[in-house]
Amino acid sequence: MPSLAPFLLACRCEPTPYTPVWLMRQAGRYLSEYRAVRERFSFLELCKTPSAAAEVTLQPVDILGVDAAILFADILLVLEPLGLGLSFTKGDGPHIAHPVRTAEQAERLPRVDVEDALSFVLETIRLVKPQLPKRVPLIGFAGAPFTLASYAIEGGGSRNCVHTKRLLYGHPQAFHALMSRLVEVTADYLNAQSRAGVDAVQVFDSWVGNLAPDDYRASVLPHMRELFNRLDPSVPAIHFSTGTSGFIELIAAAGGDVVGLDWRITLDEGWQRIGHHRAVQGNLDPGVLLGPRQVIRERVRELLERAGGRPGHVFNLGHGVLPETPRDNVRALVDAVHELSTRGTSG
Amino acid sequence: MPSLAPFLLACRCEPTPYTPVWLMRQAGRYLSEYRAVRERFSFLELCKTPSAAAEVTLQPVDILGVDAAILFADILLVLEPLGLGLSFTKGDGPHIAHPVRTAEQAERLPRVDVEDALSFVLETIRLVKPQLPKRVPLIGFAGAPFTLASYAIEGGGSRNCVHTKRLLYGHPQAFHALMSRLVEVTADYLNAQSRAGVDAVQVFDSWVGNLAPDDYRASVLPHMRELFNRLDPSVPAIHFSTGTSGFIELIAAAGGDVVGLDWRITLDEGWQRIGHHRAVQGNLDPGVLLGPRQVIRERVRELLERAGGRPGHVFNLGHGVLPETPRDNVRALVDAVHELSTRGTSG
Repeated sequence: MPSLAPFLLACRCEPTPYTPVWLMRQAGRYLSEYRAVRERFSFLELCKTPSAAAEVTLQPVDILGVDAAILFADILLVLEPLGLGLSFTKGDGPHIAHPVRTAEQAERLPRVDVEDALSFVLETIRLVKPQLPKRVPLIGFAGAPFTLASYAIEGGGSRNCVHTKRLLYGHPQAFHALMSRLVEVTADYLNAQSRAGVDAVQVFDSWVGNLAPDDYRASVLPHMRELFNRLDPSVPAIHFSTGTSGFIELIAAAGGDVVGLDWRITLDEGWQRIGHHRAVQGNLDPGVLLGPRQVIRERVRELLERAGGRPGHVFNLGHGVLPETPRDNVRALVDAVHELSTRGTSG
Repeated sequence: MPSLAPFLLACRCEPTPYTPVWLMRQAGRYLSEYRAVRERFSFLELCKTPSAAAEVTLQPVDILGVDAAILFADILLVLEPLGLGLSFTKGDGPHIAHPVRTAEQAERLPRVDVEDALSFVLETIRLVKPQLPKRVPLIGFAGAPFTLASYAIEGGGSRNCVHTKRLLYGHPQAFHALMSRLVEVTADYLNAQSRAGVDAVQVFDSWVGNLAPDDYRASVLPHMRELFNRLDPSVPAIHFSTGTSGFIELIAAAGGDVVGLDWRITLDEGWQRIGHHRAVQGNLDPGVLLGPRQVIRERVRELLERAGGRPGHVFNLGHGVLPETPRDNVRALVDAVHELSTRGTSG
């Protein structure tokens, strides 16, 4: 399939003319164009206004020259139709009005018709898709069940996941009931995104690095397998997590065509542990983008060297672009990746 | 040396009659006795009142039956005589009034006579030491240079270490000047604690898991080596960090007789990577203590199995006791470690 975009080729571990690059939170506060749109909408309003969400999704494609666009949305949107009451407060982040802390509460969660309840997300996808050049696929996404469960149980962000662990250790049946419901709705949601036109999906397990490897293996991995098994196999799935360098093999074993690496492990060691038959995504420290252009270029070169020119590397940061990042640095990063990874035609 | 306490034997990788156990933040908010003392003092006042700090240091020894006491103090105390202006605000944690963000600021930091400036800490040690049973050594501690530098640069706690990374990548000479000064004062401080009577010291690099392995190797490891080289070699040193599962070999290479492991890696894999000639400390998820007693006991058994009865394991949590922890669970943990690790005399 010679017309396949570099990003999609890399997801399949196939050779690419250069290393494709996109950045988590590439549509974000560091961009003045994004901030201008945000002045007109609250965060949730923006997610729910397809024309504006589409505009924001498309911004970094032109500005940065990235090789994939990612849908503008939030991993927690799915908690709203589950009846948990989602809001975003300035500074404090997400707030869940009705946390889930018992088995009954977990079992009482309503079935969700995602096509209906999250139609605005699907509409955003339909608006974005025709506006993207063919070489720039669109990535859909969702929160992973454990990360969603942590928010649902804690009632918001949390450093120590106290309520989550109380439930996990003290009431495992309630924890698993909640996880099962989240697997269902997340699979439905991602498949609906695929039907609406996304070319790949990313599952964000941003909080799972709070668990010990044995807990991950026993209590999360089976749910993640179930989730990945339910996804449309023709749409590549990226499995993203942070803080999991100590058990990245288990993350890989749980599924995903592409495994994300944060920056707390070297790319070559991580890839070795995941297995070279799988594609990897990552893994520059987002903090490097706060440094001078020359350091950024050096780090790109080092990272590409660690990838060793092996097919199946999607260049990305280990986590999202920091709001304090100068936009010219982001552009310089994308240019450096393209320039330094371009395979010579003389060979 | 048959009279050596089990904790000190384990620090030297020598056999012990049972696995010694102590807990980070064992003197903390989860204890009503601690909260009672805190009603009479602010946090900083408590640190600076040797009689009260000594009382709090001793509380968990009787209440829990742990195998080591840890000095009650704070890793940031050393920033005060450096002129940075330290305060603790309710809820928000530490605040540094005069952050360090230039090479000149780093070089202008005053020399500190720790015996004088931190005499209250040394006095606490002198008060505690005679009140401890011989089998319970006293652990002194300090923040590691990178963790101190992060606070000093950021002006307080920080999720992304934005200012620190800006300095590290953009003004490395300023970063290294600050690190060098912090190595000096930290070494002086820990050696003063040793002279005052502590039996071991722990260096807390709580924030270093924010760095990529290559940055740790290039910018932190040499300073840590210098620090460990300056410490009194007759006093065992514990090198603690979190979020470093992806480069635990580098943590080990930087020094310390005992290497701490957080819970994001299995003890056996971590120990293997560190090398079995080194002692390890850890690594139960503090969240397990929020669960039922029976789960705690199971996890203790599993952890001891992963340690395999090999000499050189100091049982601990992967990080501090959470404030929400029921005290009876902590006591149950200590009892379970002792009971399940007692080596039979029949062999």
